[in-house]
Amino acid sequence: MQKEEIQHIIDLKTKPLGALGLLEKIALKISLVQQKKQLELIQPHLIVFASDHGIAQSGVSAYPAEVTPQMVFNFLNNGAAINVFCNQNKIDLTIVDAGVNYDFEDYSVLKNCKVTKSTKNFLYEPAMTLDQLEQCFDYSKTIVDEIAQNGTNIIGFGEMGIGNTSSASMLVHYLTDLPLAQCVGRGTGLNDEQLQNKINILNEAKNTHEKINDPKQILATFGGFEVAQMTAAMLSAYEHNMLLMIDGYIASAAFLVASKLKPEILNNAIFCHQSDESGHQYLLNYFNEEPILKINLRVGEGTGCALAYPIIKSAVNFYNDMASFESAGVSNKETQVEC
Amino acid sequence: MQKEEIQHIIDLKTKPLGALGLLEKIALKISLVQQKKQLELIQPHLIVFASDHGIAQSGVSAYPAEVTPQMVFNFLNNGAAINVFCNQNKIDLTIVDAGVNYDFEDYSVLKNCKVTKSTKNFLYEPAMTLDQLEQCFDYSKTIVDEIAQNGTNIIGFGEMGIGNTSSASMLVHYLTDLPLAQCVGRGTGLNDEQLQNKINILNEAKNTHEKINDPKQILATFGGFEVAQMTAAMLSAYEHNMLLMIDGYIASAAFLVASKLKPEILNNAIFCHQSDESGHQYLLNYFNEEPILKINLRVGEGTGCALAYPIIKSAVNFYNDMASFESAGVSNKETQVEC
Repeated sequence: MQKEEIQHIIDLKTKPLGALGLLEKIALKISLVQQKKQLELIQPHLIVFASDHGIAQSGVSAYPAEVTPQMVFNFLNNGAAINVFCNQNKIDLTIVDAGVNYDFEDYSVLKNCKVTKSTKNFLYEPAMTLDQLEQCFDYSKTIVDEIAQNGTNIIGFGEMGIGNTSSASMLVHYLTDLPLAQCVGRGTGLNDEQLQNKINILNEAKNTHEKINDPKQILATFGGFEVAQMTAAMLSAYEHNMLLMIDGYIASAAFLVASKLKPEILNNAIFCHQSDESGHQYLLNYFNEEPILKINLRVGEGTGCALAYPIIKSAVNFYNDMASFESAGVSNKETQVEC
Repeated sequence: MQKEEIQHIIDLKTKPLGALGLLEKIALKISLVQQKKQLELIQPHLIVFASDHGIAQSGVSAYPAEVTPQMVFNFLNNGAAINVFCNQNKIDLTIVDAGVNYDFEDYSVLKNCKVTKSTKNFLYEPAMTLDQLEQCFDYSKTIVDEIAQNGTNIIGFGEMGIGNTSSASMLVHYLTDLPLAQCVGRGTGLNDEQLQNKINILNEAKNTHEKINDPKQILATFGGFEVAQMTAAMLSAYEHNMLLMIDGYIASAAFLVASKLKPEILNNAIFCHQSDESGHQYLLNYFNEEPILKINLRVGEGTGCALAYPIIKSAVNFYNDMASFESAGVSNKETQVEC
C-alpha cells in the first residue's frame, strides 16, 4: 500500500482528523514497513550491549569504570531498570558482553561477543582496529539472525558502558555539522567543571584524529565495541525488515552511523524518547523525527524503548481495531460550520 | 513516609541520580499518596462522561451536535479510541450519559446520569441551574463509590461532548488570569476563521455573565453536565484516596474547578498528556505539573490517561522492583572525578 492509501484508512477512523497525533505517524510508518491490512508486533526483543572504554581512563564520566561489569551482573540478576520495564511489557531481553573489562564465568545467559577487554583510549589512538570492527559486525549478525528465527519483527537496542557518551559525541560531531561542544553533555551527571573538562578532552582527541571521513573508520576510531555492535545489529535487523526501536543519545549515534551506511534504514526506525543529553534533540531534528517520550530519561540500557513499547502497540491497535466513521455510523466533519 | 525518605529510596536505585526523570516524580507522588513500601495500582478504571451543550447551537465546533450520541454508540460498540486503549491496558471502562440529546434504550452498560438533554446555551443564560449542578455531584458520588467497592485505587476521566472545549475555555478564563483569547483553541479542528468566530461568541457570552466568582457558580454557568460530573467524580475519587489520571484540556478544566473546591486534590493528580489545545500548556504550568505524554493528542475521551497508564505502571514497578546500589553491589557516583 502507498502512503496515501494508508493515510486515508487512518483519516476515516472515528476521531477528529489527525487527533491521534504522533500515534498516527507511527501507524503509518509501521504500515509502510509491514504492508499488511492488520499490523502486528511479534515477539518484541531488546538487546543491551555492554563494553568498557579506554577514554573512561581520562575521567570523562561521573562513575568509575568498574560500574560497567557491576551493571552487567545487575542485568543478569534482574535488578536494573531495563529488566523491570522489559518484564512489565513482555519484551525479551538479551545481554551482550561486547568488551567488558571482566572475566564473566557464566556465559549461559550472557552472550559472549567480547572483542577485547575495553577499547583503547581514543585520546591517543583509535579505539579499535578495522578488523575488530568487522568482528563486531559478525557478532551482531549472528545474534540478530538468531532472534529473527523466533519471528521477532520489532527490536530495540540498549547500551551500558561507562564513558560511552564520549564516543557518541565524537560520532555525532564527525558525521554531522554540529560543533563538538554542542555534541557533549553531562552523561550520567557531570557538574559544570567536569563537563568543561570532558569537552577539553574530546577537543584534544579531535586533534589526534584529524581527517577521517569514512563512517566505518570514524566508528572504529571512537568506538566503543557496544556502539559498533549496536550499529551492526541495527543494520542486520533492517535486513530482516524488523521495526527498530531507537533509544537515547548513544543508540541514536549508533543509528547515525548505520544510516550513513544504509540511508533507507530510517524507514524502519521509531524514535522512542528524547534524552536529556545535549545533542540528542539535534540528532532527532537531523533525522526529522519526533520522539515518543520526553520525560528526561538518561539511564540508557534501552529503557526508552521498553517504556515506549506500549505506545507503539497503541498505534498498531488503533489502526487495527478502531471503527471507521462509516462502520460506526458517526457523522464526519462538516466542511461548513453554521454560525 | 516523608518526601525525603521516599526520595532517598529512589536515589539509591541502580541508575544515575535522577536519571528516570518524570518517572521518579510520579513514583514519589504515588508513594506519598499510598504510604506503603510496595506501591500498587489496583483495578484501574476510566469513566467517560458524555453530554450535549447548548452552546454547540451557536457554531463553536467543527462537528455537528449529533456526533455526541453517535460517539456514545461507538463507545458501547467498542469502536472508539478509548475502547482500544482501555482494552490494551486492561483498564475498566464506564460510559456515563450525563446529558446527551438522545433517548438511549439500553441503559444496562451505559450509566444513566442524564440531567436533561443538553445544557442551555450559555451565550444567553446559565448552562444549568445550581440544583442541576448538585444533581451532577450526587450522580458522580454514586458512581465513584461503586467503583471504589472493587478496590480501584487509580481512576481516569474522559469526556465526549460536541462544544465542550468552549465550556472549558470559559472555566479556565474565569478561574485563572488567562485572557479569554488564549483560553480558546481549535477544538476538534477549526480553521482560522472558525476559531475567530468561536472567540467572538465566547467574548459575547462573557458579557452575558459579568461578575461571578464562586467556582460552583462558574461551573453551573458554563457547564457542561459532563464537565460538572467529571469535577464531582474527581472530588469523590479523592475522598477515596485514589490516584487521579487527568487527561487533556477539558479534564484539566474540570480538575481546575475541583482544585478550587479542594486544593489538596493536586497531591493525587497525575497529568497524563499535554493536549494540542491552546491553553492546556498554561494550565499545566498553573498547576506546576509535567505531563507524561506530549504527542499532539486531541481526541479527548480520556485517551491520554489510557495511553499513559503503562508509564505510570513503570514508575510503580521501578520503585518496587529495581535493585539498590547496595543490594546489587554496584559502585555509586564518585563525588570527585579523577582527571
